[in-house]
Amino acid sequence: MLRFEIEARSAECAARVGRLSVNGRTVETPAFFPVGTQGTVKGVAQKELVAHGVQGILCNLYHLYLRPGIDVIEAAGGLHRFINWDGLIITDSGGFQVYSLKTLRRIEREGVHFVSHLDGSSHLFTPERVIEMQARLGSDVAMVLDECVGYPTTLDYARRSMDLTLEWAKRSLRTVGRGGAVFGIVQGATFPDLRVECAQRLVEMGFDGYAIGGLAVGEDKPTMFEMVDVCTRELPEERPRYLMGVGFPEDVARAVSLGVDIFDCVMPTRNARNGTLFVDGGRLVIKNARYARDDRPIEEGCDCYTCRNFSRAYLRHLYMSGELLSPMLNSIHNVRYYMRLMSRLRDVIRNGQLEGFLAELESKRQEETDIV
Amino acid sequence: MLRFEIEARSAECAARVGRLSVNGRTVETPAFFPVGTQGTVKGVAQKELVAHGVQGILCNLYHLYLRPGIDVIEAAGGLHRFINWDGLIITDSGGFQVYSLKTLRRIEREGVHFVSHLDGSSHLFTPERVIEMQARLGSDVAMVLDECVGYPTTLDYARRSMDLTLEWAKRSLRTVGRGGAVFGIVQGATFPDLRVECAQRLVEMGFDGYAIGGLAVGEDKPTMFEMVDVCTRELPEERPRYLMGVGFPEDVARAVSLGVDIFDCVMPTRNARNGTLFVDGGRLVIKNARYARDDRPIEEGCDCYTCRNFSRAYLRHLYMSGELLSPMLNSIHNVRYYMRLMSRLRDVIRNGQLEGFLAELESKRQEETDIV
Repeated sequence: MLRFEIEARSAECAARVGRLSVNGRTVETPAFFPVGTQGTVKGVAQKELVAHGVQGILCNLYHLYLRPGIDVIEAAGGLHRFINWDGLIITDSGGFQVYSLKTLRRIEREGVHFVSHLDGSSHLFTPERVIEMQARLGSDVAMVLDECVGYPTTLDYARRSMDLTLEWAKRSLRTVGRGGAVFGIVQGATFPDLRVECAQRLVEMGFDGYAIGGLAVGEDKPTMFEMVDVCTRELPEERPRYLMGVGFPEDVARAVSLGVDIFDCVMPTRNARNGTLFVDGGRLVIKNARYARDDRPIEEGCDCYTCRNFSRAYLRHLYMSGELLSPMLNSIHNVRYYMRLMSRLRDVIRNGQLEGFLAELESKRQEETDIV
Repeated sequence: MLRFEIEARSAECAARVGRLSVNGRTVETPAFFPVGTQGTVKGVAQKELVAHGVQGILCNLYHLYLRPGIDVIEAAGGLHRFINWDGLIITDSGGFQVYSLKTLRRIEREGVHFVSHLDGSSHLFTPERVIEMQARLGSDVAMVLDECVGYPTTLDYARRSMDLTLEWAKRSLRTVGRGGAVFGIVQGATFPDLRVECAQRLVEMGFDGYAIGGLAVGEDKPTMFEMVDVCTRELPEERPRYLMGVGFPEDVARAVSLGVDIFDCVMPTRNARNGTLFVDGGRLVIKNARYARDDRPIEEGCDCYTCRNFSRAYLRHLYMSGELLSPMLNSIHNVRYYMRLMSRLRDVIRNGQLEGFLAELESKRQEETDIV
């Protein structure tokens, strides 16, 4: 069902270039999956995703379960057909969303009881139901239910939580009626020993791929990368590795060097709506007065629809005017920026130039700089 | 500068089919101009306008003057270049917007003093400045400054206002530095004698085209059409006629039968954002529960991107979820609906079947019906 072929390995580090295929749908890795929580990448029509090189998106079971409901999507012929997207779809199990609910959920051995953020109704997600529902959606890659632990936490809590996540992982694999591929999720907070143990025990169970969860939740960057490194070292070479919810371009690149193959993050689309645009060499905050008469595209040489057709001055005007076209054009650019980044990463891995590229990216961290 | 060729005339009524060309840009008439007040048709990217048959849009001097400012647009090479739109652009003078400000404006013989809705700053529009600024924008068709009178009004007020509008029209024509074509605007409220006089006196001045203004401001439909009829009878055959701010599909069709060539209205895009979709045979309110599992497109046979790719069920989901893709896909459909309507009108005029088509449209007035 899932095929993962590694086509090239870095001579410098753990990075690799590959192809992930599920149900006849393929993405080149390292791959970045834009987030389409509710079955749409915010502000970007499906044909623009295709036109700008997106091969896969991340949807969310929790949100789609609450609205429009699994039965509606199943009746429409599954999620791909419902949203008219023939690229790859990974569905997150909702563990992270439930974790975000905080006071509105109760975690038990059986599963997670939670209250809908939409109407206050009560629900129960069990590991088995989560796998079954993702199969009913026709998701290509289903994620197991896990407990995502906040930062900071105690070793004791992190261990108990990890044990629960592992028990749930085992129950997930035993679930009859699995559809696409199923990925396990390595937890263990910021404790290297737990991360190692969690990864090893998941690998023993034998998943189609492995995600690294519970990171980018408040810990510092060195800790995050230490955890990624610890995990990828334990995960099998021949299976895809997915770092959930990360992140800035330079963080994605760093994680690629540690052997991660798949990423998702709201960063390109959320920043686009805030008027923050990614460019080589920094970021561009489009509302700044300096762009009011700037005739240049967001980024010289970018091949996206926005850069090929519109000036910074126009984009600033759209942003200041609160026009719908503002998030639309900004999102296209930022999504395309990430696609170009991944393509570049695949190239520099093949060419043995990843370390140099990484140093260059980190010297101009996009989160800190603004360009002129 | 402006060329208007009539290619076919209805044998049944005053309708005609033609081609309006200004600055090498052409629209087939009867034509509907989607509204792009601030230099963007809300929710529809420029390439989608082109792909869906839009040949011209209406922008607004008042809004563009306040933000981003005429000098910004002029520095960018004009409005077409600033917004990257090579179709025809009509710019409204802002008379209607100033009229909408009510307490924030003072009309004098010199012009209109008004206060910005954005920052409370004070401004003066004179007939001369309005023409000059539209020339600086590079607008293809500039509208004269007029006073748009509300409904109801007195004969006395309407006459004095009309006299002022006519004086302003004369000053507009005398303005040095006119750019594209200039249209006069027939006012006269709901008084047929005033409408006739206003039209005759404008025609004596000799404009490139003539608009009918001050309608669809609260009067009943029979009165509106009576005024349209009174005006078009006075306007020269060989010049284009533009009914401003109208309207529903059946109203557009009715006005076409009275000899109107050009329309603009926020109806397709505003309704799209509210989830109201135009279809042959009525309108469709996408939030209705009946569409939750409806696998059909908005309209069978519609060739728009939305109908070719997405179901009512998905569109309802997007609307209920407050997703950006909802107004985007809805707007594309509604704009395309109006373009198909105009194309159909041109066909039935040529074929001598306008009256039948009109009767059919009016039997299912889109403002009143919802379809299943």
